[in-house]
Amino acid sequence: MISLPYLLRSENIARIEGKHLLIGDRRVYPFEKRFERCSTVPETASALKRMVTQGGGPLEVALTAMVFVVEQMKEGSIAKEFAELEIAAALLIASRPTNTTMKRTLLSLLEELRGRPDFIEQVAPLVEAKKHAFDQLYHQLGKAGSSLIPDKAGVLTTCFAEHTFLLSLAYAKESGKNIRVFVPETRPYLQGSRLTAPPSLQEMGIEVSVITDGMGATFLGTGDANLYMTAADLVCMDGTVVNKVGTLGNAIAAKRFNVPYYAFSVSPDPTKLDASGIQMEWRSARR
Amino acid sequence: MISLPYLLRSENIARIEGKHLLIGDRRVYPFEKRFERCSTVPETASALKRMVTQGGGPLEVALTAMVFVVEQMKEGSIAKEFAELEIAAALLIASRPTNTTMKRTLLSLLEELRGRPDFIEQVAPLVEAKKHAFDQLYHQLGKAGSSLIPDKAGVLTTCFAEHTFLLSLAYAKESGKNIRVFVPETRPYLQGSRLTAPPSLQEMGIEVSVITDGMGATFLGTGDANLYMTAADLVCMDGTVVNKVGTLGNAIAAKRFNVPYYAFSVSPDPTKLDASGIQMEWRSARR
Repeated sequence: MISLPYLLRSENIARIEGKHLLIGDRRVYPFEKRFERCSTVPETASALKRMVTQGGGPLEVALTAMVFVVEQMKEGSIAKEFAELEIAAALLIASRPTNTTMKRTLLSLLEELRGRPDFIEQVAPLVEAKKHAFDQLYHQLGKAGSSLIPDKAGVLTTCFAEHTFLLSLAYAKESGKNIRVFVPETRPYLQGSRLTAPPSLQEMGIEVSVITDGMGATFLGTGDANLYMTAADLVCMDGTVVNKVGTLGNAIAAKRFNVPYYAFSVSPDPTKLDASGIQMEWRSARR
Repeated sequence: MISLPYLLRSENIARIEGKHLLIGDRRVYPFEKRFERCSTVPETASALKRMVTQGGGPLEVALTAMVFVVEQMKEGSIAKEFAELEIAAALLIASRPTNTTMKRTLLSLLEELRGRPDFIEQVAPLVEAKKHAFDQLYHQLGKAGSSLIPDKAGVLTTCFAEHTFLLSLAYAKESGKNIRVFVPETRPYLQGSRLTAPPSLQEMGIEVSVITDGMGATFLGTGDANLYMTAADLVCMDGTVVNKVGTLGNAIAAKRFNVPYYAFSVSPDPTKLDASGIQMEWRSARR
């Protein structure tokens, strides 16, 4: 039986509770199970910008935020106009420019709603359908990913590679494969050692070693890691993969040592032909 | 005028003060200017094992420790026998197995003293001569290194690359070149951000950016870093370079992006033909 760790359960990523949209705060996990409470969409977009959640989190938050807007329309704090949904989507999209899955999903949602007189009633079921479709895709990709993992694999990863990677490991484990995962700390926010391991992988019963960000090439070179798997914030149509800093160095080292590298993505972005179209997020050097 | 930063001044690495050998504690610098006070050679060897100093530090400490043994002979706490020098050297050598410069230097010192009735009087001047020879070599290598640095260079390094690297930068700066250095934090002990930058490079007036250990390949790829320079804990006769973890990944990325990589070493170890003879230090995963 495949079960997701705490961090990836939908209700721990984003949920509506009374008059608030709650976002699971990945900046303090696992030391605290804290939720950021947002009372408006601008507050929600600001929370995404401040990296309260990351990876696949902003997509889930943004979809939930569209339902949240509709609830605010029903109680009268927001006008019942389609333009309000467009404004909300624009704010959310602008909060995280590199990963465009959230953008594309919100734009497709707006297109499905545009011109419908019952758009207010349609938001929640359409959002549910989209969340369900992503869940199915994650599991499909997880099964595909597990087939790429040999028995006795040493899998190097980077950062917190979310549903598809963790489901790949879960399905591989379920099929009886022995796996050891090497997780770089992923400085400066330590998503590797705070989100991936120990918490999530230990919950899933998978052997894991946290390593420093400079150690990937060494374990690829010794053969202890014979597979490299990450998520992808963005994949361009020419195959360019964008992901957390540190991924490039490990990918080059994997090639040098003939270790296969797989990056998980629900789809490439058809609007990005190559790297020239990417809007890269650079964060402030100050904390 | 070339002047060394605080950390590399001889008296801040190791000195004898009264009945103690003092070692500058690089584990707490720059937050504290603390010295580990050793009253015996076994204590000194233990301090080296515990990484009180690193890089070129153990060589300087070990040479100072041989003079310290002679002072203890003179005051009567150690027998005036040549074997005592051999025991001291063996303890010091065993404390840090990978970097063999200290080992080779102590063994050559013992060979020069062996069989001499006046060996006790000869230790201090021979140690002084060896320290002086290393200083001269560091400056020669620094001048050679500076000739490899172009104007407007972006120099990536790793860890704390000691005299030869810092002198290369100092001579390059003296000749009017503009240089920017990228220093990975160098987890887990953060020698990059505690020893190299900000303290030492800022003292020297060289522009520096501290980056995380996963960022080297990115800056090599963008061209911001167009040179990679490190120290070497050991160089084998076949050219194999051993250095702080993280060096391998950056070296592979440098090759991928056609960026030259130079590793500084006072000499290869003629007893190490290739990587098979290296005794690699692995530290405990626990702190």
